[in-house]
Amino acid sequence: MDAKLKEYIDRLNKLNFKEMYENDFFLTWEKTDDEIEAVFTVADALRYMRENNISTKVFESGLGISIFRDNSTRTRFSFASACNLLGLEVQDLDEKKSQIAHGETVRETANMISFMADVIGIRDDMYIGKGNKYMHDVVDAVTEGYKDGVLEQKPTLVNLQCDIDHPTQCMADMLHIIHEFGGVENLKGKKIAMTWAYSPSYGKPLSVPQGVIGLMTRFGMDVVLAHPEGYDVMPEVEEVAKANAAKSGGSFTKVNSMAEAFKDADIVYPKSWAPFAAMEKRTDLYGNGDFDGIDKLEKELLAQNAEHKDWCCTEELMKTTKDGKALYLHCLPADINDVSCKDGEVEASVFDRYRAPLYKEASFKPYIIAAMIFLAKEKDPQAVLEALAERGIPRHFEG
Amino acid sequence: MDAKLKEYIDRLNKLNFKEMYENDFFLTWEKTDDEIEAVFTVADALRYMRENNISTKVFESGLGISIFRDNSTRTRFSFASACNLLGLEVQDLDEKKSQIAHGETVRETANMISFMADVIGIRDDMYIGKGNKYMHDVVDAVTEGYKDGVLEQKPTLVNLQCDIDHPTQCMADMLHIIHEFGGVENLKGKKIAMTWAYSPSYGKPLSVPQGVIGLMTRFGMDVVLAHPEGYDVMPEVEEVAKANAAKSGGSFTKVNSMAEAFKDADIVYPKSWAPFAAMEKRTDLYGNGDFDGIDKLEKELLAQNAEHKDWCCTEELMKTTKDGKALYLHCLPADINDVSCKDGEVEASVFDRYRAPLYKEASFKPYIIAAMIFLAKEKDPQAVLEALAERGIPRHFEG
Amino acid sequence: MDAKLKEYIDRLNKLNFKEMYENDFFLTWEKTDDEIEAVFTVADALRYMRENNISTKVFESGLGISIFRDNSTRTRFSFASACNLLGLEVQDLDEKKSQIAHGETVRETANMISFMADVIGIRDDMYIGKGNKYMHDVVDAVTEGYKDGVLEQKPTLVNLQCDIDHPTQCMADMLHIIHEFGGVENLKGKKIAMTWAYSPSYGKPLSVPQGVIGLMTRFGMDVVLAHPEGYDVMPEVEEVAKANAAKSGGSFTKVNSMAEAFKDADIVYPKSWAPFAAMEKRTDLYGNGDFDGIDKLEKELLAQNAEHKDWCCTEELMKTTKDGKALYLHCLPADINDVSCKDGEVEASVFDRYRAPLYKEASFKPYIIAAMIFLAKEKDPQAVLEALAERGIPRHFEG
Repeated sequence: MDAKLKEYIDRLNKLNFKEMYENDFFLTWEKTDDEIEAVFTVADALRYMRENNISTKVFESGLGISIFRDNSTRTRFSFASACNLLGLEVQDLDEKKSQIAHGETVRETANMISFMADVIGIRDDMYIGKGNKYMHDVVDAVTEGYKDGVLEQKPTLVNLQCDIDHPTQCMADMLHIIHEFGGVENLKGKKIAMTWAYSPSYGKPLSVPQGVIGLMTRFGMDVVLAHPEGYDVMPEVEEVAKANAAKSGGSFTKVNSMAEAFKDADIVYPKSWAPFAAMEKRTDLYGNGDFDGIDKLEKELLAQNAEHKDWCCTEELMKTTKDGKALYLHCLPADINDVSCKDGEVEASVFDRYRAPLYKEASFKPYIIAAMIFLAKEKDPQAVLEALAERGIPRHFEG
Repeated sequence: MDAKLKEYIDRLNKLNFKEMYENDFFLTWEKTDDEIEAVFTVADALRYMRENNISTKVFESGLGISIFRDNSTRTRFSFASACNLLGLEVQDLDEKKSQIAHGETVRETANMISFMADVIGIRDDMYIGKGNKYMHDVVDAVTEGYKDGVLEQKPTLVNLQCDIDHPTQCMADMLHIIHEFGGVENLKGKKIAMTWAYSPSYGKPLSVPQGVIGLMTRFGMDVVLAHPEGYDVMPEVEEVAKANAAKSGGSFTKVNSMAEAFKDADIVYPKSWAPFAAMEKRTDLYGNGDFDGIDKLEKELLAQNAEHKDWCCTEELMKTTKDGKALYLHCLPADINDVSCKDGEVEASVFDRYRAPLYKEASFKPYIIAAMIFLAKEKDPQAVLEALAERGIPRHFEG
Repeated sequence: MDAKLKEYIDRLNKLNFKEMYENDFFLTWEKTDDEIEAVFTVADALRYMRENNISTKVFESGLGISIFRDNSTRTRFSFASACNLLGLEVQDLDEKKSQIAHGETVRETANMISFMADVIGIRDDMYIGKGNKYMHDVVDAVTEGYKDGVLEQKPTLVNLQCDIDHPTQCMADMLHIIHEFGGVENLKGKKIAMTWAYSPSYGKPLSVPQGVIGLMTRFGMDVVLAHPEGYDVMPEVEEVAKANAAKSGGSFTKVNSMAEAFKDADIVYPKSWAPFAAMEKRTDLYGNGDFDGIDKLEKELLAQNAEHKDWCCTEELMKTTKDGKALYLHCLPADINDVSCKDGEVEASVFDRYRAPLYKEASFKPYIIAAMIFLAKEKDPQAVLEALAERGIPRHFEG
C-alpha cells in the first residue's frame, strides 16, 4: 500500500473512535480527543486519495439530505461536495416547497425524507435555544423510525451550524492551522486570538466564536477571547473552554481589548458577532411575535455596534502579532473596509495578503464533513480506506 | 441464488405484464391484476435487495425529471429516492425558473427536458379535468419525439398524483395492508372503510379516496365509502369500484355515516376531501378568471365543512372496529386534534398509537415508484433482478 | 473496435486541439477551425455511444456547477444532461439562496463553490459588457485558486450564453445543419439567412444572431444578416463575420429586407432581438439605477418594434426560399402567430411543419456541452473514447 495512506491508517489504528459508528455530530466538545483526531485524519486521507485520483465513493446509491434554514454558499457547496465524494446524491429539503406548514411535525418530516437517506445536514443558527434542539429532535425521530423498522438505516446527522457550535467550520479552521504549523504537536503554547470585530450588519451568529473557543482550547494553545463589553458569548461554552484549557495544558483568557489579544498572537480570528444576551432577547421577542420589539432591539444593537468601529483588524494591529506575521483566519465572507462596506472587520490590504490561505482554510470543510459521514457510516474505517485503495477505481477515468 | 429473491422471481414468472414495458403509469384501473401484482412484487424485491446491501442501480447515467405543480414533501423525496435507487439523477422542472411562461407549449417543453430523461414524474392535482390530461399531453409529446428521432428513449411517465388517481400513494397503502395481513390471500372478506373526515382546510384533493376505492376493490375486500351528503367523488371512479368489486368477489358500498363505516372494519382510512361538484365548479371559475366567485365558493365550502366536525376518527369510533383494532391508514400529513388544529381528522391518541405503522405505510412509496420505473424500462425484469444479484455490487461498500 | 467509433477517432487524430485541454469555452471565434471540428466530432461520438448503450461516464464523482442569471429551460436541462452523461452531479448556485449579497466577491464565490467542481456553466446575457466579463472574472479566480493550491482542479468554464455569444446554442444549430446537409463538405455556397423577426416582447438577447454570424461564416456559406434599420448587432462581431467569410471562401452580407434575405436561401433563422445600441443604453441606465429611464426606453423600443410586424416568417416568404424548402431554424421558444401571441416571428403552419427538425436541432445541445467539457478535461480524448468502448459498461444495465 501507498506509504502516505498507510501513515493515515496507522494513525487511526492508535485511536479509539468506536462510538462514532452510527452516531451523530452535534458539538465538538461532545467528542473525545481521539474522535476529533480521527475526523482530521480521515479528512486528510480522503483529500489525499482524491488528489491521487482514487475514488472514495462508498455509496452506489443513497441520499444526503440538506436542510438550510439560513442562506449559505460555502457550507451548502461543502456539504454537496462531501456527499458527492462518497457517492450520495444531495436532496435539499426546501421548506417552502414542502408541506411542513400544513401541520406536519418535525418527527414526521424527519422520517418522511429519510427512507433512503444516509446523512442529514442541517444549518439552523438563527435563534438561541432552537437550532441545536431542532437537530436533536430530528435525530430522535429518525432513531425511533429506525428502531420501528420504518427506516432501513439511521441517517447520521451533521451539524452544519447551530446556535451553539459550528463544528464543520471550526474543524476546517483547526485542520488548516495544523497544516500551517506542520502538525498538532507544534501548537503547544501558541497564542490564538478569537476577537470580536466591527461590522455594519447586525446579529451575526455566535456559533463561530463559541465553536472556536470550544475546540481550540483542546490543543495546549493559549486561547484569548476578546470583545467589547456586552458582547459575551454563551457562558456554558466559556466553561467548556476553561475546562479544555486546564486539561490540555493551555489557557483560556478573556480581555476587552483587541490590541491586547493581538499582542504576540500566532493566530488571529477577528470576526463580528451579536451579543448573546441580545440574541436571547430576540428569540423571546420572536417567540411572542413582537416585531416592533425586534425592530427596537435592532436599533439599539446597531447603536451599540457603532461605538466599536475601532475593533478592526488593521495593518497596524497585525504588526503587533508574532513577528508581525500571525496567521489570519476568517470563516468568510468577511466585511472588508472599503470593499464590502465602509468600515468593517478587516483592512483590505490585510485581507488581500491572506487571501490564498483563507481560501485554503475553507477548502478543508468538504473533507471534514465527508470524514464525519465516513466515521458514522463505516464500522471499520481503516479497512474501508485500504479496500478503496486496493479497489483502485479512478475518480476521473483517463483511459 | 438467494431463496427469497428466487421467490419474487418465481412469482413474476407467473404473471403477464409484457404491456408495461415502454409504457406509462396513469391510473391503477388501467392496469391488469397481473400488472398490479408485478408492481408489488418488484417493489418488495427491490426493498429486499436494498436491505441486503445489493445495488439495484441499473442506470449508469440518465435523468429522472420531476414536475411538481403543488407543494410536496413525501412524494418529492419518494420520487428522488426511487430514481436514485435505480441510478437516475433527479432534475426538477421548476416552472418559475423556466421559460414556460414565454409561450412555450407543453409539447415543446416535454421534449426539451427529455433528451436524456428515462422517467418523468408529475404531480398535478389541483384542477378537475386538468392534471391527468396534462400528463397525457406530456406522454403524447415525448412519444412523438421518440418516433421522430428527437429523443433517444421515451421517458416513462409516473403519475405522482393527478385529479383522478394517486397511484403511488394508494399502491403504497395497499402494499402496507398486504404486509400487515400477511399476504393478499388473507384479504378476502376484510372490511375497509374509506371515509371522509373533517379538516379545517378547504379543498383537499379527491385523488386519494378515488384511488383507494379504484384499487382496493380489486382484492375481494368489502370496501365502504363514507362521506356526508354532498361530498361525492367522481361518479366514473365509483363505477370502476363497482365493477372491480363484482369481479373480485368483494363489495363496494356507500354510506353517509362514519359510525356505520367503522363498524367491524378491519381497516379504516379517514381523510378529508373536497366535494367533486365543488372542485369542478372551482375549475370552471378558475378557467374564467372569476376570483370573486372562487372566494364565494370557498366561503360556502368552509361553512358546509363546519357542519361536519363530528366526522372525526375518535377513540370511541376505533373501539367499534374489528376487535377495536382496525388498521388505521392515512396518506399524511393528517390533521390531528389539538396538534395541527383544534378539530381535525383524528384524535391525537389514535394517531400516536398508529404512528409507527403509518410511517411504515409511507415507506413503501419509494419502492412502488421504483418498481413502476423498473417495469417500464426493463424488457426482462426477472433476468435483470437475477443479474443484479449475480453482479453483487454492494449499495454501501464496507471494505 | 466498432467501425463508426473508429471513424470519429480517426477524424480527431487529424485535428490539432491540444490547447483545449484545461482550457475554457467563451466564444466560438476564439477557437480554431480544428477545435470547432473537434467539438462536433466528440459530440457525435458521445451521442453514438449513448445510442449504443455504452456509458461515457468518465467521472466517478465531481460537481458541475450551474449559474443561471436568467430563466432557462432547455439550456438548464442540456447542461444537466451533459454533466450527468459524464458522471458529474449538477449543483446550482442559486444566488438568492447564497450569501453573495453579503459582500462576497466574485473571486471568493468562484473559489468557494469549486473545491470539487470540474465544470462551471454560466448563463449571463442580460447586460451588454457584463456577461462575458463576469465569466472571465470567474475563470481568472479559479485559475488563481488552482495555482495557489486552493483547488485541486481548475474547473472548466462553459459559456451557456453571454452578452456576446451563445456558443452551445449556435454549435448545436450548426451540428444540426451539418447532419441535415450530410456533412460539412456540402455547405460551400449554401445561403443562410439570419434575420430579425417581430416579437411583441422587448429586449431579447443579441447573443444568438451574433453567435450565428460569428460561427456560420466559417464554413464557406453565404451568410446574410437581415434586420430593420436600427437593429444592428455588435460591430465587433460583424467584423469577425467578415473576416471569417473572407477566410472560408464564403460571404457575409447585410440587408434591410427579410424578403431579400429569404430569396433562394437554403437555411433561414428568423428571430427577434433587441437593437445593440438600445441594449447598451439600457445597461448604462441600469448601472445608474435610472429605472424611469429604463421604462421610457422600453416604451420607445416597443413603439419602434411595432413598426416591423411585417418581419414574420410566413408561408409566402418560405416559398421564395430554395425550392420552397429552406431548413427553418430557431433556438426556441419561438413567438408563433396566434399561438403564443397575435403577431410573432413565424406563422403557425410553418412552425408546425418544422417541429421535428427544430426539436432535433435542440437535441444536439447536451452533446455539444458534453464535448466541450470532455475536450477540456481529457488530455488524450481519443484514447479515452477508445478505453470507454473497451470498458464497455452499459449506460442501461439490461441483465
